[in-house]
Amino acid sequence: MFDLLIKSALLAEKNQYVDVAVRDGKIVEISEDIQSPAKYVIQAKGKVLYPSFANMHTHISMSLLRGLGADLPLMDWLQKVIWVLEGEFVSPEFVRDGALIGIAEAIRSGTTLFMDMYFFEESIAEVAQKAGIRAGLGFGILDFPTRVAKTQEEYLKRAREFIRDFKGQELIFPTLCPHAVYTCSPDTLRKTLQLALEEEVYIHIHVAETQQEVDASLEKFGKRPVEHLYSLGLLTDKTLMAHVVWTTEEEREMIKEKGAKVLHCPESNLKLASGIAPISDYIRRGIHVCLGTDGPASNDNLDMLEELSLMAKLQKGANLDAKAMDARTALRIASEEGFRAVGIKAGRVEVGYDADLILLDPNKPHLQPLYDPIAQLVYSAKSSDIDTVICKGKVLMEKGELKTIDQEEVLFVANKWKEKIQGFLKSKILF
Amino acid sequence: MFDLLIKSALLAEKNQYVDVAVRDGKIVEISEDIQSPAKYVIQAKGKVLYPSFANMHTHISMSLLRGLGADLPLMDWLQKVIWVLEGEFVSPEFVRDGALIGIAEAIRSGTTLFMDMYFFEESIAEVAQKAGIRAGLGFGILDFPTRVAKTQEEYLKRAREFIRDFKGQELIFPTLCPHAVYTCSPDTLRKTLQLALEEEVYIHIHVAETQQEVDASLEKFGKRPVEHLYSLGLLTDKTLMAHVVWTTEEEREMIKEKGAKVLHCPESNLKLASGIAPISDYIRRGIHVCLGTDGPASNDNLDMLEELSLMAKLQKGANLDAKAMDARTALRIASEEGFRAVGIKAGRVEVGYDADLILLDPNKPHLQPLYDPIAQLVYSAKSSDIDTVICKGKVLMEKGELKTIDQEEVLFVANKWKEKIQGFLKSKILF
Repeated sequence: MFDLLIKSALLAEKNQYVDVAVRDGKIVEISEDIQSPAKYVIQAKGKVLYPSFANMHTHISMSLLRGLGADLPLMDWLQKVIWVLEGEFVSPEFVRDGALIGIAEAIRSGTTLFMDMYFFEESIAEVAQKAGIRAGLGFGILDFPTRVAKTQEEYLKRAREFIRDFKGQELIFPTLCPHAVYTCSPDTLRKTLQLALEEEVYIHIHVAETQQEVDASLEKFGKRPVEHLYSLGLLTDKTLMAHVVWTTEEEREMIKEKGAKVLHCPESNLKLASGIAPISDYIRRGIHVCLGTDGPASNDNLDMLEELSLMAKLQKGANLDAKAMDARTALRIASEEGFRAVGIKAGRVEVGYDADLILLDPNKPHLQPLYDPIAQLVYSAKSSDIDTVICKGKVLMEKGELKTIDQEEVLFVANKWKEKIQGFLKSKILF
Repeated sequence: MFDLLIKSALLAEKNQYVDVAVRDGKIVEISEDIQSPAKYVIQAKGKVLYPSFANMHTHISMSLLRGLGADLPLMDWLQKVIWVLEGEFVSPEFVRDGALIGIAEAIRSGTTLFMDMYFFEESIAEVAQKAGIRAGLGFGILDFPTRVAKTQEEYLKRAREFIRDFKGQELIFPTLCPHAVYTCSPDTLRKTLQLALEEEVYIHIHVAETQQEVDASLEKFGKRPVEHLYSLGLLTDKTLMAHVVWTTEEEREMIKEKGAKVLHCPESNLKLASGIAPISDYIRRGIHVCLGTDGPASNDNLDMLEELSLMAKLQKGANLDAKAMDARTALRIASEEGFRAVGIKAGRVEVGYDADLILLDPNKPHLQPLYDPIAQLVYSAKSSDIDTVICKGKVLMEKGELKTIDQEEVLFVANKWKEKIQGFLKSKILF
């Protein structure tokens, strides 16, 4: 008896119709006609089967701040809008409600793993577990006092507690999240590394996002951000570095040497005017590149399909080379490379891989005629064409209906926060 | 009696609920509560009202070639894939069926005007008229023989006939479409200009799309493409130039001086590795910039919302300046500036403007909370959130249902061509 059987799906990679059987969260058989019984059967005739996406860098609860301060550069956006609002509102309730909206969106757009850095991550864990989505979560560590912690000791204590509370779960795993080299001193970074080694968890950090960050790092430490992390021992094969827009040849070789991962966020990097990361060069050098949306307030959504489409086109256009990235590579980066970066065997529709899958409905004018299901996923489709989403064998969405989240609750919660936050903005004449 | 009354829509620009009354295709009243009767009423409570989009550069029938030759650079893509397939298949039936698919997609994604360059444009006119969408159509003029014409004389004759047959219609207007400076001799361009002046029609042409085009123009004519057109008198305020990626300061001043329009196609320019057009510089200089998707085989869709979102983000990221383009400017370029370029008073939700409008359903996780309807249209929405589309007062889509096109026919026709074209590709081992 299989747990799940997908009948008559068009397997994108081979452009062939197949049945796919799943047991214990894993793909156990793919063939033309599987007749054995299953606890749950999805009739996928006419739909296309792809691996699901791994969103490797986000701050999912910032969905509650979506659209605010649009068109400001990174530092203004952070200092004049985001940090002001976070200072006023961030609480376990804010984080939980924001996560509910964000996770609903993530599932709808085909994501089954997200890597998050924020505060009160236990509230995100609660929503993620209930929703059945994978999440690598870390409590943000900073050198300045916020609502959630005041001192280095307190930040590290909270981060350690979060790790101990959330280790060994099925879908959730804890990480350590020092914010960046411009917000964490060398001492804080060293202590974080020590804790990461003791607890055997990934470090997830913002690195070399803007030119200004590089300049400030050079001025303060005499080293560029990647060099600085290298010299502190922070570059390891369990280091996940978001952005990595501004690097020298030497820094790229350091990343390669140590096996650190790059979490590319092209939309956020464009929107906040941070720049265009040299991703095709990283790939040519053998650096492990993954993809993320960044937080929904700086993107302004969690749409991995939009992100992977942009990544491929941007590498072509910015490098004036149509071969700089092809559709298959883009899909692999948005899926398998993300899962693999955190030790999950998923992101391929193959026997032995976890069943993290999406079905797409191509019966729409903008996807017709359907000649090449992978090129047309990357260049023609919208995430709204995703019809069914499966995470580790569990169906999270089917025929456009969320199975583990009540969408009415999402809209209710969004409206509640809209009124609170708009009231505050009006009182402060921030806009 | 109004022809159409939209009740309780959230007017995006003012973030206020309004009723909108339409008569004879024009917006005649906007106020908080209109009680007069109307022939047709749309209850828009909870939906957001924006102007519709003007797709200023496409080859809409190329929907039938969507996804083929993905990841090839412009010249390989044209010579090895597109021209081979067009040579085999282009016919009035191909053009009509491709237009049906493309127009269905265009309407679904909020477009009410498209400017097209191709062959057998009378077949596109037929579909566009039936669908109730505006279209500026031109018969492509080239210096080499194709299935549709052999000599310069023959091309110009067909172009002239098309103009005479389609002048003075309500939604369709003819244009003249010399393909580019690398495919039309100075003599052909001069004769086309003469015809444009006689017939008082717009000239729609590809200009300075790639560096290679500039190099070839310099070698052949001693002038860059824009300079070459300027010296031939082809730059006028009725000249619509697609792409315009590669220009010098002097050429930008020529464009400004003559009032020629730039039709920016950022997705196609990235995907075909043509480059990133300096759009924010053009705007700063006062050049009239519009937006287009290019053909659906080089994009690979007709999604103007994706295009305008990319335009704004790309200008920010490529210029390292978050103020290089804001959301309101992006929307204006994608809408009003397009209509205005061809003398249509539409693209604003204001009394006296034509009723070319869309309603968007924001009750989706990825659009919540909704603080800023314009920023969130540009940075968060997908065209699948568009619920209702109105062209010159006529409802073309309501609640996601096409009113003037049978979507089943679209899928049927797409499948018919898929089989033909795939059969040919297999026989030629092109792939």
